[in-house]
Order: sequence, then structure tokens, then C-alpha cells
Amino acid sequence: MRTFLIIGNRASTKPFSLNDLPGAGRMDILCRCVSQALFLSHSIRKDVEVFLLLLGQPDPPKAIRISGGEIRRMSPDERNIGGHIRKALTVPCSAEWREVHSGLWVARMGLKELLDEFEEIYYLREDGEDIRRVVDSMDSPTFILGDHLGVMPEDERLVEKHAKGIISVSPLSLMA
Amino acid sequence: MRTFLIIGNRASTKPFSLNDLPGAGRMDILCRCVSQALFLSHSIRKDVEVFLLLLGQPDPPKAIRISGGEIRRMSPDERNIGGHIRKALTVPCSAEWREVHSGLWVARMGLKELLDEFEEIYYLREDGEDIRRVVDSMDSPTFILGDHLGVMPEDERLVEKHAKGIISVSPLSLMA
Repeated sequence: MRTFLIIGNRASTKPFSLNDLPGAGRMDILCRCVSQALFLSHSIRKDVEVFLLLLGQPDPPKAIRISGGEIRRMSPDERNIGGHIRKALTVPCSAEWREVHSGLWVARMGLKELLDEFEEIYYLREDGEDIRRVVDSMDSPTFILGDHLGVMPEDERLVEKHAKGIISVSPLSLMA
Repeated sequence: MRTFLIIGNRASTKPFSLNDLPGAGRMDILCRCVSQALFLSHSIRKDVEVFLLLLGQPDPPKAIRISGGEIRRMSPDERNIGGHIRKALTVPCSAEWREVHSGLWVARMGLKELLDEFEEIYYLREDGEDIRRVVDSMDSPTFILGDHLGVMPEDERLVEKHAKGIISVSPLSLMA
């Protein structure tokens, strides 16, 4: 199992327009991350889960969980993925995961509660260790990454405290 | 300079709805390819050009050219990129490149005419040679890739005839 947690510093915590994903706190970035993490050309990675931490207005924090093995009717385009996220935001949420539909959950969780869910955490940052040198030693990793704003200093300290390592896929700040 | 040519076997050749990019002959795939080829986290790769070959109904073939160094007001979300492509499809086109706006061109060109534009062609296919072993010898490469349908047999023969090599970034059929 591989897990990704993407931090959306401004990502909307209420239902948003699918016609303006960038305007919903750069929801387009989160959608691309989900797409890249879950989809192969004609299939879905069943052994991947993606967590999104939404920290934007008006009702932060909210966390969304998507399971590649269980999600149904998701396609890799941003608008479709945005539709799933929007649906999750219509549901009342509490500290426990609540299933919105198959493979999609929402909860009232912040970064700390989310980090407690994972065992083997790696923080993805441009200046980290080259992933090619550590990938073979990974068992069931969780990769933490930020959005266009990165990870805020306070959150970064929390991530670093929980992380087994800081790794990099490229010296450039890539997209999704 | 790096160049990408993506073949959209069913991609619409008339203006389409931005609310249904998948329905426009899987235009969402072409948009993701443009996004991945051109954008870094906070910048655009100025040394990259992307060519799209649109082979869908009702008016194929059409070719679109996007220059990372010259394009303006493009953002990395699929809908925005789809808007640029749609705009290019509103313009009458001929065998010569016609500028739609800065960094965006359209022409009536098929695969053969497009291949004649490039010098150093590599065909990206899952069973090709590992790109890591050949990347250092590349000068100004053009990478050819297919959409969800791949590259049709007749087109593939044409590409293979022009290609300097067949290379692979992964044994899996990746997305965008």
C-alpha cells in the first residue's frame, strides 16, 4: 500500500463550482495530485490511498480519503475528481471517517490527527534525499506533499517530527 | 528545446464544451499532457513546445502548437488549457501555421506533415529502451506519444520510420 497526503492550504471546505477549480483555493492542484496518484492509462492503482487536507475557508479543517481499491465512477479528469471532492463537502463531518460513497470518506481532522493515522511517513521536498536511493527500503510509505504554497512552517515542524525521512523526486519544484 | 507531440485519435476538431472535456474525444488527456509538459510548480518550461494532433470529428486533421516560451495567460488546470485549444479550433486553418494568440498556433496538418517539422524524434512506448540510458545523448528531442488508444498501426509505422529510437519512461502504461 502507498499513501499520499496532500495539504491544500487554501482549499475550499464548502461545495464549490466545478467551473472554477482554481478559484476554490486551487482545488485543481489537489485534483491533479489525485489523478496522478491513482490512475494509470487504463486502470486505477488499487494499492493507493490519497488523503487531502483542506485548510481553506469557511470551515477548516476537513480531511478527505480516497481509496483506489474501492472508489467507483472516478475518471482521471480534474472536473470528475472535483465532483467527488465537492460531494464529500456536502456531508456533515465529525472526528470519525464518514463514508460518502464507496471509496470516499470525509472527516473533521487536522494535520496532527491525520499524521497519527500513518506509520511510515516521508516528507516530499525538493531538497530531500533522492527517492531512488531509498525507495527499495520502503514498506508501506505515506508521502506528504504541499500545494502551490508548500507546507506552512508550523505544519512543516509537525511533519518533520513524524517523518522517517525527507525525500525528493526532483531538485525542481514539480507540479502534481 | 524539448518538443512533445501527442496524438489525439478521437480529439474534437471543432469547438467543444469546457464542461465535458472527456466527451470531446478525451480532450482531458491532451490537456493533462500539455499541463505536465509545460508547467513546473510556479513557472512554465520556456524551452518546451507541445504539438497536439487532433484526429477526431468533424474536421480532421488539425494540429495545434503551444510554445512554453511565448504562451500567455495559460494556467495548469485542464479547463484553462482546454479553453486555449477550443479557441484555436474557432480559427479557420490552412497548411501553414496560423497564430491564434501569442504562443498558440493552429494548422491543417496530419501526422506526416508534423513529423517533417522535427529532426530528432523519439517514440515513447512502454516496451522501448529505458529513457535513463539514452537521455544524455539527446540534443533537441521530440517525443511522440499516443492518447488512451495509443498510436494507430498505420500512424505507428510512419512514426517508426521517422524515429531515431523507441524509448520508455516506465514499463507501465502511464497517464499523461
